[in-house]
Amino acid sequence: MLKLQRWLSRNQLFEQVVCKKAGHVDHAFGSHPFSSGVGIPGQKFTHTVPKNENDRVYAAYNVYKGKAGVSMFPCLPTFTKLESGSLVIDRRGSILLTFFPAIGERKYDWTKKQFFSLSPTEVGTLINLGPRDSCEFFHDPGMLSSTAGQVRKSLTIKAHADGNGYFISLNVVDNTKSTKEFLSVPFTAGEFSVMKTACSFALPHILGWDRLTKPSLGMEKGFQPNKVNREGLSLEWKR
Amino acid sequence: MLKLQRWLSRNQLFEQVVCKKAGHVDHAFGSHPFSSGVGIPGQKFTHTVPKNENDRVYAAYNVYKGKAGVSMFPCLPTFTKLESGSLVIDRRGSILLTFFPAIGERKYDWTKKQFFSLSPTEVGTLINLGPRDSCEFFHDPGMLSSTAGQVRKSLTIKAHADGNGYFISLNVVDNTKSTKEFLSVPFTAGEFSVMKTACSFALPHILGWDRLTKPSLGMEKGFQPNKVNREGLSLEWKR
Amino acid sequence: MLKLQRWLSRNQLFEQVVCKKAGHVDHAFGSHPFSSGVGIPGQKFTHTVPKNENDRVYAAYNVYKGKAGVSMFPCLPTFTKLESGSLVIDRRGSILLTFFPAIGERKYDWTKKQFFSLSPTEVGTLINLGPRDSCEFFHDPGMLSSTAGQVRKSLTIKAHADGNGYFISLNVVDNTKSTKEFLSVPFTAGEFSVMKTACSFALPHILGWDRLTKPSLGMEKGFQPNKVNREGLSLEWKR
Amino acid sequence: MLKLQRWLSRNQLFEQVVCKKAGHVDHAFGSHPFSSGVGIPGQKFTHTVPKNENDRVYAAYNVYKGKAGVSMFPCLPTFTKLESGSLVIDRRGSILLTFFPAIGERKYDWTKKQFFSLSPTEVGTLINLGPRDSCEFFHDPGMLSSTAGQVRKSLTIKAHADGNGYFISLNVVDNTKSTKEFLSVPFTAGEFSVMKTACSFALPHILGWDRLTKPSLGMEKGFQPNKVNREGLSLEWKR
Repeated sequence: MLKLQRWLSRNQLFEQVVCKKAGHVDHAFGSHPFSSGVGIPGQKFTHTVPKNENDRVYAAYNVYKGKAGVSMFPCLPTFTKLESGSLVIDRRGSILLTFFPAIGERKYDWTKKQFFSLSPTEVGTLINLGPRDSCEFFHDPGMLSSTAGQVRKSLTIKAHADGNGYFISLNVVDNTKSTKEFLSVPFTAGEFSVMKTACSFALPHILGWDRLTKPSLGMEKGFQPNKVNREGLSLEWKR
Repeated sequence: MLKLQRWLSRNQLFEQVVCKKAGHVDHAFGSHPFSSGVGIPGQKFTHTVPKNENDRVYAAYNVYKGKAGVSMFPCLPTFTKLESGSLVIDRRGSILLTFFPAIGERKYDWTKKQFFSLSPTEVGTLINLGPRDSCEFFHDPGMLSSTAGQVRKSLTIKAHADGNGYFISLNVVDNTKSTKEFLSVPFTAGEFSVMKTACSFALPHILGWDRLTKPSLGMEKGFQPNKVNREGLSLEWKR
Repeated sequence: MLKLQRWLSRNQLFEQVVCKKAGHVDHAFGSHPFSSGVGIPGQKFTHTVPKNENDRVYAAYNVYKGKAGVSMFPCLPTFTKLESGSLVIDRRGSILLTFFPAIGERKYDWTKKQFFSLSPTEVGTLINLGPRDSCEFFHDPGMLSSTAGQVRKSLTIKAHADGNGYFISLNVVDNTKSTKEFLSVPFTAGEFSVMKTACSFALPHILGWDRLTKPSLGMEKGFQPNKVNREGLSLEWKR
Repeated sequence: MLKLQRWLSRNQLFEQVVCKKAGHVDHAFGSHPFSSGVGIPGQKFTHTVPKNENDRVYAAYNVYKGKAGVSMFPCLPTFTKLESGSLVIDRRGSILLTFFPAIGERKYDWTKKQFFSLSPTEVGTLINLGPRDSCEFFHDPGMLSSTAGQVRKSLTIKAHADGNGYFISLNVVDNTKSTKEFLSVPFTAGEFSVMKTACSFALPHILGWDRLTKPSLGMEKGFQPNKVNREGLSLEWKR
């Protein structure tokens, strides 16, 4: 029997903070703009990549609209290698959404970006939405810590009345700064279909199941990547 | 013409026993908690990994609810390498479900865990369920052996009346101990969507079809991974 | 402008004959039985694998029922390597179905097996079937050759009236032997779901698109697996 | 805050021109014909491959019908490797459609081919189409350049009234040549299902998300392919 509170709070806090920082980098460079609307601009960022960020891949799906834009990409889980050689998942993966407001025609203010990191279950909810369904997710980055309640975020996905698209909106209330930010991006049915298809593809990867179903590079020794030492097990688990 | 009874019984027995033992290990470490409900705790296990279980990957999808929780991950098929160098599937894969009861707020009793291993066809049934469908699977771990009927398990997946989720419940009757266990976990539509998407991803892998459609590491010699020696065949199969 | 008749006839003939021979081998060994029905037997084959069939993988999805059974697995396309180093698809892939009659309880007569090789478009039709849809495919193994019309095959997939499964039936009329074979296997909704999911997984592979979207082992030189020599192109294609 | 116009115009122009040139090569060789209609011919091209096009893979899905045919295959994104070692997406991927008119029974005039390159969002729209839905896409290859408006293309996907297939039609108006081309290919439900399944498979790849979710060959150093240098980040992104 295990006590779980401690682990939960640490994990959730960690995810909220670190994944957002990862987001800063992951979509900041070279994301290619896609925009199916007429006259809606795309964007290619030209920041210099810091030298210590080597071996990374930058490829986000971006939707740019008149009042705001949103960028998304998967954030893989991280694993810890045990002394035994086994890999244990350390931090779950997510789909990171980054919203940024428009400040003119085809101009976006990247300094005002806001993050929302979709957990696997939230991704499952999203890809399960029918053409007239809606959902809302609430995040508190400081949950179960001393900063609980200071910042509250909600993401709303709301179907258009005609079933031909969605509004994806992020609401951020920061009590420490007394600020409220509202960023809303209309998605066409096609853009939402890209999001659903890409998130469905990514979901097993952010769960780490791609690690279970194929050997990692340099990890396979035989034909049973999930082999079990049955003698060890029978001792370990005998009741 | 082949007689099949012997093979069936051995295989099914084997699957029931070994896959469950594999389960003991596969989800016992480092599984990251996901829980979309409000105030529902997650969990991170800290058991020591036995030294002889090296090169394994631990990544399960877990749903923790008020009365019980369930953990799931794919169990890959195993292959036997023939003298010829060919790989023959030895034991089919499955999705292993592990249920465990809650014994307090955010506390689960891992020693009372119960297993249910979904065959490929049961996985197919699960991913085919509509929002108001239900199904039930029956397992007898001792089927076709001398212990047949001693333990009977049934897994029920029952849609909520409003179509917004499911109850996934495991019933285990053990006549040797005169015990009955009932563990039931409510799934939101989003959590069930994760389960369906992850199981759809895993299904070709537990069938071993990923081996058919791409060369295994170190196995490819040419561009026909499923090449056929036609001369050999015509001799082998001539009627 | 090209004349196409010659290529079509050769290719289609080739596919019908060779793919069936490949089938003899691909599912003949070690395929693990799955059968969701109560009391329906599975099967594990124990033929000796010929020595020259090395480096192959044997993993089929099998459905065994009272009057007949069917085995299926993907048959990958073959590629020819050009002098330039490029790979050109040589023979398209397929999903090979092998039907065999029951001759008693849990006994099947493998010598009476019949083949039906699903083309990509037929696979597309199958995975598009709704719970009350049906379809029929016709094959003539001798099409466009001197043996045209000698053997006629039709595969019927017919939904149960209640939408809870399908009959998959193969009809083979061989005029050279004056024989008619009819083999029919009832599929539960779950078994058909496995077939659809596995075929959806396999479809891009039998099209060869997995080769387009990732570098083959030992083939990648840079980051543009489908790179284009633009100078060469502009010369090649200028009008 | 970034100014985006310049980047948009360059990228879109580039995509329109270069991807079409890539198309010239990608489907011109060895694409295997599939055609589910009765008496509709397939095709295998026998052009010599130019020597400088080595290490490429040619595998398209083709539909040949009475008045025209269409060939499709995915066009992967290209990446630029930065000094830091990171990969930045350089040009987004697409699904390239190539239409060609029939000029007789089983004869197609390849010199009159016309291209249409589906963006990720257009692919999303296509795979989201229900059996009675339709959509239309407009492209101007010279958009935002001095040749804007000279050539206008529209692709229409229109469901049959009975829901059993689609017409996929390309309209090209070239004002510089005063020509209008109209090429229309009827798709059966099965052929469209292949297109949807293959495009769903390809979509994460043309977004570059396969690069995010697995290490590229020779790129992995640890277990965090998307690892983040947190110190570097906190400096980079501090506000």
